[in-house]
Amino acid sequence: MALLGSTGSIGRQTLDIVRALPERFRIIGLAAGKNLDLLAEQVTEFIPEFISYTASGSSDNEARNRFGDVKCKVLSLEEIACHPDADIVVIATSGTAGLGAVLSAVKAEKTIALANKESLVAAGEIITAEAEKSGARILPVDSEHSAIWQCLNGEKQKPRRIILTASGGPFREYSKEQMAGITVEQALKHPSWQMGNKVTIDSATLMNKGLEIIEAHWLFNVSVDDITVLVHPQSIVHSMVEFVDGSVKAQLGCPDMRLPIQYALSYPDRLANPELPSLDWTDFHSLAFEQPDMDRFPCLRLAIEAGREGGTFPVVLCAADEAAVGLFLSRRIGFTDIARLVERVLEQHEKIAHPSLEEIIEADARAREAVLKLAGGAAR
Amino acid sequence: MALLGSTGSIGRQTLDIVRALPERFRIIGLAAGKNLDLLAEQVTEFIPEFISYTASGSSDNEARNRFGDVKCKVLSLEEIACHPDADIVVIATSGTAGLGAVLSAVKAEKTIALANKESLVAAGEIITAEAEKSGARILPVDSEHSAIWQCLNGEKQKPRRIILTASGGPFREYSKEQMAGITVEQALKHPSWQMGNKVTIDSATLMNKGLEIIEAHWLFNVSVDDITVLVHPQSIVHSMVEFVDGSVKAQLGCPDMRLPIQYALSYPDRLANPELPSLDWTDFHSLAFEQPDMDRFPCLRLAIEAGREGGTFPVVLCAADEAAVGLFLSRRIGFTDIARLVERVLEQHEKIAHPSLEEIIEADARAREAVLKLAGGAAR
Repeated sequence: MALLGSTGSIGRQTLDIVRALPERFRIIGLAAGKNLDLLAEQVTEFIPEFISYTASGSSDNEARNRFGDVKCKVLSLEEIACHPDADIVVIATSGTAGLGAVLSAVKAEKTIALANKESLVAAGEIITAEAEKSGARILPVDSEHSAIWQCLNGEKQKPRRIILTASGGPFREYSKEQMAGITVEQALKHPSWQMGNKVTIDSATLMNKGLEIIEAHWLFNVSVDDITVLVHPQSIVHSMVEFVDGSVKAQLGCPDMRLPIQYALSYPDRLANPELPSLDWTDFHSLAFEQPDMDRFPCLRLAIEAGREGGTFPVVLCAADEAAVGLFLSRRIGFTDIARLVERVLEQHEKIAHPSLEEIIEADARAREAVLKLAGGAAR
Repeated sequence: MALLGSTGSIGRQTLDIVRALPERFRIIGLAAGKNLDLLAEQVTEFIPEFISYTASGSSDNEARNRFGDVKCKVLSLEEIACHPDADIVVIATSGTAGLGAVLSAVKAEKTIALANKESLVAAGEIITAEAEKSGARILPVDSEHSAIWQCLNGEKQKPRRIILTASGGPFREYSKEQMAGITVEQALKHPSWQMGNKVTIDSATLMNKGLEIIEAHWLFNVSVDDITVLVHPQSIVHSMVEFVDGSVKAQLGCPDMRLPIQYALSYPDRLANPELPSLDWTDFHSLAFEQPDMDRFPCLRLAIEAGREGGTFPVVLCAADEAAVGLFLSRRIGFTDIARLVERVLEQHEKIAHPSLEEIIEADARAREAVLKLAGGAAR
């Protein structure tokens, strides 16, 4: 297994699974961003054949100094993603930066455990077309998409409707007035999931659920209009699928990312892992559901609109959101400015209906620039 | 399709499905009990090739008089169940009387849509062994077992646990004192399901859930101890399956028997049927769950114990219950006497570990006699 994004939240939890089931999985490649200390620890523990880090390529010496005790080649992210020794490539990088690696793995006919939803949102048309050509399999790692995938297991027909559940995030009950004053610390405290910073903020704005709609559209070939969102604060039901006969299947479990990660790695098997939690039905007495409020959570509406529009709209949504979340995390804009900035960038955008990879990368860069430019006005 | 038990609740709903999807299903055989008026109507509408009714065999003249306008042969239940023209045999008869027909269909390698749980409870070992030998497929029609079956669809491994949901019946919140005074009319008012009289009373005592545990044990080859019951008053979640990795799958739908009936008939396809209802998630805000109370509902405990014991215990449970429910429906005993009588009959029973069909039929008859004998003391 090659693991891209090994020092992030999903990456570390993937290594928990490998640690618990060493007879089943072996790490042959690790790629990280800038957290070289943790990467060095992981290299010592898992002894991969090759590694990659953000500065790699330009600085083999640094790698040799840092990882001198173990023999491992330094490769680029794209080289690791298509390495012939890797059967499974886990792509757990954050943001649209992972796009090149996803395409590299798809073209090399890998089994891809995909935790990076931004790549499918930005370039779903290209990625799914390439996967169909090469025969690569894209297996979802996101808990919601894993749930849908598990519910579709063994079914011959396409679903009539996908019901994506959403925790609603920490501000589910906030008024519009309260939302203006939300701090970074408040937004980073998710009530049910432990995740990386970017996805935690996206969960608080419900942009994450919007991106998941577009991701589900590409993964399961279901129209955006046949994907609905249901707020379920306990995060026990991870999503549902409705079939043509009115039957609904749901997947449930503790809110623990190791469950969907392990399923993607072990599919079509399921493996007993004593470290994974089980639901205790004596613990809770009801599962609550409510409709999402698009007025207080405009990011969800923006994502649905961008998903319906298609073309370059989703990549602009994604890139503008990433830039705006970055500004929020560095305290340069307020919480509600995220949606405001994304909306303005989308309004200014001129759609390309079937963009090439270059056009997607270009639209991505322009959207980020537009956010930074607009942020002057929005910053406080 | 041959339909045994066509005038009962499941039988009539099966004909609703045939009526809605005439290009897919054709009725070639109908069998009913004593409701000859309704059978005559059904014969006129569906024009089967052969029929059966309780008095048949001895009285071809009566059939000719009654069903004179249409040409159809009168056969026995067992003859219809194994008729070479039937691809699917729906067994929707009530009680252990359907056992012979089930075995006849199993030996003839039919696809059997089984709504008669008593046959599997009484003779699960024989039926499943015969089905393995002949290659007959037994597809569940009960909503709970259909749910489990749908959740197991596409899964390679056996489940770790089955979670059977139970509505809890109309007396879920009754105290033990209140239960003694329950009338037939109260017991026949089920809060969420429209069913026949016998199963409605069994739902009120939770005996139905106990029989379903034993049925699930045979259908899915899962130990009685790995099947737990969870009370879910809304009857939206029809049952759940937990896998070795901690993942849980649930099947949901409106409480309408036509859904699981159609699924058994159309499997592995799912068919769009505008007459079947869909869940409306704006309608309800939570799904409630609670633990069953074995003290107030001793029938559930008795069934679990009989299921664990195995051998002739389940058939004695089943037959004693059927006899006791009959006495309750004819107002000869009280509601709580049902469990009391069944428990006494089970206490008196001497187990045969691997009974033959004859021994099962014998144990069935003796249990009924024992109930009638004991009922003198319990009757009021």
